[in-house]
Amino acid sequence: MEGTMKTAVMTDLMKVEIQERPIPQPRENEVLVKVEYVGICGSDLHYYESGRIGDFIVKPPFVLGHEAGGTVVETGAKVKHLKPGDRVALEPGKTCGECEFCKQGKYNLCEDVIFFATPPVDGVFQEYVAHEAGLCFKLPENVSTMEGALIEPLAVGMHAASQGGARLGQTAVVTGAGCIGLVSLLSLKAMGVSKVIVVDVMEKRLQKALELGADAVINGREEDTPARIRELTDGRGFDLGIETAGTQITASQLIKGAKKGATVVFVGYSATGEMTLPIGMALDKELNFKTVFRYRNIYPTAIDAVASGKINIKNIVTNYFELDDIQTALDACVKNKADIVKGVIRI
Amino acid sequence: MEGTMKTAVMTDLMKVEIQERPIPQPRENEVLVKVEYVGICGSDLHYYESGRIGDFIVKPPFVLGHEAGGTVVETGAKVKHLKPGDRVALEPGKTCGECEFCKQGKYNLCEDVIFFATPPVDGVFQEYVAHEAGLCFKLPENVSTMEGALIEPLAVGMHAASQGGARLGQTAVVTGAGCIGLVSLLSLKAMGVSKVIVVDVMEKRLQKALELGADAVINGREEDTPARIRELTDGRGFDLGIETAGTQITASQLIKGAKKGATVVFVGYSATGEMTLPIGMALDKELNFKTVFRYRNIYPTAIDAVASGKINIKNIVTNYFELDDIQTALDACVKNKADIVKGVIRI
Amino acid sequence: MEGTMKTAVMTDLMKVEIQERPIPQPRENEVLVKVEYVGICGSDLHYYESGRIGDFIVKPPFVLGHEAGGTVVETGAKVKHLKPGDRVALEPGKTCGECEFCKQGKYNLCEDVIFFATPPVDGVFQEYVAHEAGLCFKLPENVSTMEGALIEPLAVGMHAASQGGARLGQTAVVTGAGCIGLVSLLSLKAMGVSKVIVVDVMEKRLQKALELGADAVINGREEDTPARIRELTDGRGFDLGIETAGTQITASQLIKGAKKGATVVFVGYSATGEMTLPIGMALDKELNFKTVFRYRNIYPTAIDAVASGKINIKNIVTNYFELDDIQTALDACVKNKADIVKGVIRI
Amino acid sequence: MEGTMKTAVMTDLMKVEIQERPIPQPRENEVLVKVEYVGICGSDLHYYESGRIGDFIVKPPFVLGHEAGGTVVETGAKVKHLKPGDRVALEPGKTCGECEFCKQGKYNLCEDVIFFATPPVDGVFQEYVAHEAGLCFKLPENVSTMEGALIEPLAVGMHAASQGGARLGQTAVVTGAGCIGLVSLLSLKAMGVSKVIVVDVMEKRLQKALELGADAVINGREEDTPARIRELTDGRGFDLGIETAGTQITASQLIKGAKKGATVVFVGYSATGEMTLPIGMALDKELNFKTVFRYRNIYPTAIDAVASGKINIKNIVTNYFELDDIQTALDACVKNKADIVKGVIRI
Repeated sequence: MEGTMKTAVMTDLMKVEIQERPIPQPRENEVLVKVEYVGICGSDLHYYESGRIGDFIVKPPFVLGHEAGGTVVETGAKVKHLKPGDRVALEPGKTCGECEFCKQGKYNLCEDVIFFATPPVDGVFQEYVAHEAGLCFKLPENVSTMEGALIEPLAVGMHAASQGGARLGQTAVVTGAGCIGLVSLLSLKAMGVSKVIVVDVMEKRLQKALELGADAVINGREEDTPARIRELTDGRGFDLGIETAGTQITASQLIKGAKKGATVVFVGYSATGEMTLPIGMALDKELNFKTVFRYRNIYPTAIDAVASGKINIKNIVTNYFELDDIQTALDACVKNKADIVKGVIRI
Repeated sequence: MEGTMKTAVMTDLMKVEIQERPIPQPRENEVLVKVEYVGICGSDLHYYESGRIGDFIVKPPFVLGHEAGGTVVETGAKVKHLKPGDRVALEPGKTCGECEFCKQGKYNLCEDVIFFATPPVDGVFQEYVAHEAGLCFKLPENVSTMEGALIEPLAVGMHAASQGGARLGQTAVVTGAGCIGLVSLLSLKAMGVSKVIVVDVMEKRLQKALELGADAVINGREEDTPARIRELTDGRGFDLGIETAGTQITASQLIKGAKKGATVVFVGYSATGEMTLPIGMALDKELNFKTVFRYRNIYPTAIDAVASGKINIKNIVTNYFELDDIQTALDACVKNKADIVKGVIRI
Repeated sequence: MEGTMKTAVMTDLMKVEIQERPIPQPRENEVLVKVEYVGICGSDLHYYESGRIGDFIVKPPFVLGHEAGGTVVETGAKVKHLKPGDRVALEPGKTCGECEFCKQGKYNLCEDVIFFATPPVDGVFQEYVAHEAGLCFKLPENVSTMEGALIEPLAVGMHAASQGGARLGQTAVVTGAGCIGLVSLLSLKAMGVSKVIVVDVMEKRLQKALELGADAVINGREEDTPARIRELTDGRGFDLGIETAGTQITASQLIKGAKKGATVVFVGYSATGEMTLPIGMALDKELNFKTVFRYRNIYPTAIDAVASGKINIKNIVTNYFELDDIQTALDACVKNKADIVKGVIRI
Repeated sequence: MEGTMKTAVMTDLMKVEIQERPIPQPRENEVLVKVEYVGICGSDLHYYESGRIGDFIVKPPFVLGHEAGGTVVETGAKVKHLKPGDRVALEPGKTCGECEFCKQGKYNLCEDVIFFATPPVDGVFQEYVAHEAGLCFKLPENVSTMEGALIEPLAVGMHAASQGGARLGQTAVVTGAGCIGLVSLLSLKAMGVSKVIVVDVMEKRLQKALELGADAVINGREEDTPARIRELTDGRGFDLGIETAGTQITASQLIKGAKKGATVVFVGYSATGEMTLPIGMALDKELNFKTVFRYRNIYPTAIDAVASGKINIKNIVTNYFELDDIQTALDACVKNKADIVKGVIRI
């Protein structure tokens, strides 16, 4: 396909403008996708606001956005499983396929990954993208490209729940009811977890959690979280905790509220990178801790869970924006974290 | 058996005296064991010195000691697998057998455990003990009761290595080369781990580690531990770390020296119960953390490893003492931690 | 409680009569349960019809029945977690608590198990039973004692699904749509399995499977089962198979219909005890096989799944009978296997 | 490199001749390897003798041989981790890197694998081969290219032992003491298994097993194998069985000799592809069965085990041959299975 496309380019901190760029050409193992929806992720906002996450530093011009769904418009010569018109969810990370981690199926640990909107690799707040066909997952009839865009954050929650060994009959606690906390909640319920308790300090988020199926919520500002967890679990504590708030307060609450032998999964990054934790209590309880970095091998399961109705992913979205209004959208998201739980850009 | 026996009774902080007490009578499912060797554990020294560990508080008179080997002298009516003359290693914790944890095979998490020398339950620095037959493991011909006494600490290291998933071909790092660090080293090697690197700050302990089979040692006071770990692993980091030193410095060194996807097992308790850790780095590497509390279902494997020569457990002992000299023994151990790596009382 | 109770006593092959027997007295760790419902299991019918299963041989007088739900009427002196009036599901096997298997949490493998209605131990087709309190699981308000009786067969299916590693997003095939096939189906769906295909040769059973949530059914007499499995799985084969029919035909169909790397769980016993299987094909696909014997540690999860509405267990029942009519009931079940998928005795 | 090389070409059943072929040119991600040693595998002999294995049919001219060690002589433009002069072991299977199995790290199940000496892909009984650099594993100083050639069969045994969950303290039984049985034995011992019992019917092989470290051997023709297994395990049965003989007799012996809850790994293919097995007994014992197809992600561990001295792989070789004598070599191996346990071609 010839011509140019609208691209939302971050030109400075808190500045993004629509520019025209050439439509990319797919290579032989790639497809060209007309991007239709892109979710706004906390990491996009972080780069937008502060220009960096850890060692990853934005050098403008830079394109944000990595949660994308769209429709295939062209296919490279070697692509077999996709054709124009197929609607797809895009897994944003291309890995080397040859390192120890790729060979062992833990490709999310590949050192040479190229990942949308992780500097210096551009993201997909733009009309078209050429992407490796193997990373474009065909959506069934009853899954929209908007839901396709949300497969990416869902994959994070599902990987966390899966790494934590979520299963039928367990009681789980999720700390943090932002996007990742909510997709963790949805994943836990889909995996058969009996009771999911969600902890946050913002009422709007707790309401959202209840609306999405939480069995109970705790406002960590108003209640003694570990005590309340014990009450809600007949004094036994929970089996599986998922920490998405990125604070040592919530992480410690999980250690205190856990049943002996329980597992706690760390997903959220703390501001400083460090946490002070009651490790002695963890030893007494023989707790297990998992940490997760993105996800692996989980798009098919996530899409299937949405298609079968086990997960109603579109309900996590609270706000929609147009690509032309992206500056307004990002500014609103940055300023209004309590209200905008999850925003999506329509392209 | 009638009569009295010598018992080393802790009468106050840093005070222990030999008293005569009645020889206990075994119940129908118990055996009476003539105790021959009892190891001195760090927890014994802790109670001796400070009177408490966490919520466990010594109320004198109290008997210390929980690492015991001896010979069966009487058996209860229902005991079938043991007879007088059998030499045994004693697993010190009696559990309820009925709670959720016991039913699931995680009996080390039983809330109702009765464990030698954990207040208010007396230990075994004494000549005889009546103990549940199922917790007395018969020693093969070529394993002495002195080695039998050391099965208890070995079980701790073996449980840690096992929970960490130790296996053929891995590279491991053990921080802390006290008794538990050394038994972890021995367990890792017996499980086929290729290279075990031991970190400590006391040269005598590092020498002991080398003598017991460590492939390399790092003096954490003199070297940059994470950098040295990378050097020793061709820049890749280790697969499995076992933290026995109980400090946030060593725990953080393990997080820094770990390969992506690696596992770190926490065994050592820190003085304050808390540790400040670089959790953000752990997330980037998708590390797994296990914690261990004592051990479970591991005496037969530990005894077998000693019997088959895979583990030369007796070499961890640096000092022997007589029961009559127990005050001197405990005082020496308290004062002389750098030199007395592992002491054993002959009874 | 004093007095006598009605007991259904098997006095010969195909003969059962109601006799009066003394109401049993609960020991200190037991409760006396007023039995309200007892399911009729295939093994009961087998003993009734042929007097034996493998090495277990009925010597009349003998009491059948092991799937029981009822209400506590008396408690032994040491029982704490139950009181008269509590409604309970009874786990039928009492194990030693001390052998290697019990210690490791695999108590279903205990050699010294005492199990209802497994010769020479009497079962519970009777009005009262004294049973170990730890094996009586309290039912929540919204679970009836009829459902309580069905927890036992449900536990078999749930253990099979759990041992097979059932999880979100998988495709599963269950061969055999008798009681155990149906509870396997229910368990798989509750664990998040996307698509469950059920294979049988009796239409009534296949209809029952569809009614209980099967995504597709295959009549193995009319269709080429492996070919149909491939069709229903886009040519890929299934991830998890559960074999409950006890025939080498169905077992072989599973090996042929499996995806590479899949797991097949054997639950059903074949008449001869032997099966001729295409092991070479299993090797080419690197399949995993699990076998299951009863269940372990699964009553709480099964009860919770019923209470939360994830599993509608009462719908597996096709026929109810009164205790006084037990001879008629058992005869009907023996003669009419195609129609009576699951019968229950009201007591 | 220009010029021609000696190649052993199978021209008909039981016929192989040395021909000159052009030395291959390595592509950018390949290396050219001077082949130095190639093991003779049972599958080579099968193709040589009967022209087929299952659906794989030899169409001459065809080159056999897939167990190779050699020295790098040229490297493609993109190869970084190897240089001329490096000695390497060659993993013979090149996989697609993109299918579900490759992505999940189970690349041995890739449908599109290209594997040395599996029709129609030529093998390496020849002087040079161009092979993907990522499949050429550098050998440490103290591992010869002859040992390098044997890494391939060792990988099979190590994958089997690993899939079976081999670990410290277990008792294992290996049926079949041919090459794969012996490498299984070596792997089990390296993983810490306490006692390995080897079963075969040929005395020479049993002697070889004892020489390589078997703790006991059973001549299945002269002894009641399951009874002898029980004797050698104090009546308890084994924890882990590895079946390499490919007969239903040995497979059934393992089911009979297994402890409850044990695992049996199937490695050997039976002549007909089918086996009649006592599945009822397997259910009573709740046995687990694994099957293995080749191996994955195991060369580094296997090389490390040889380098560290844990495995003395070169001792499995009983006969060496020169490339020019390959017809004699293959004929001898076919005729003399009882004496030639493992042959290697020097090139």
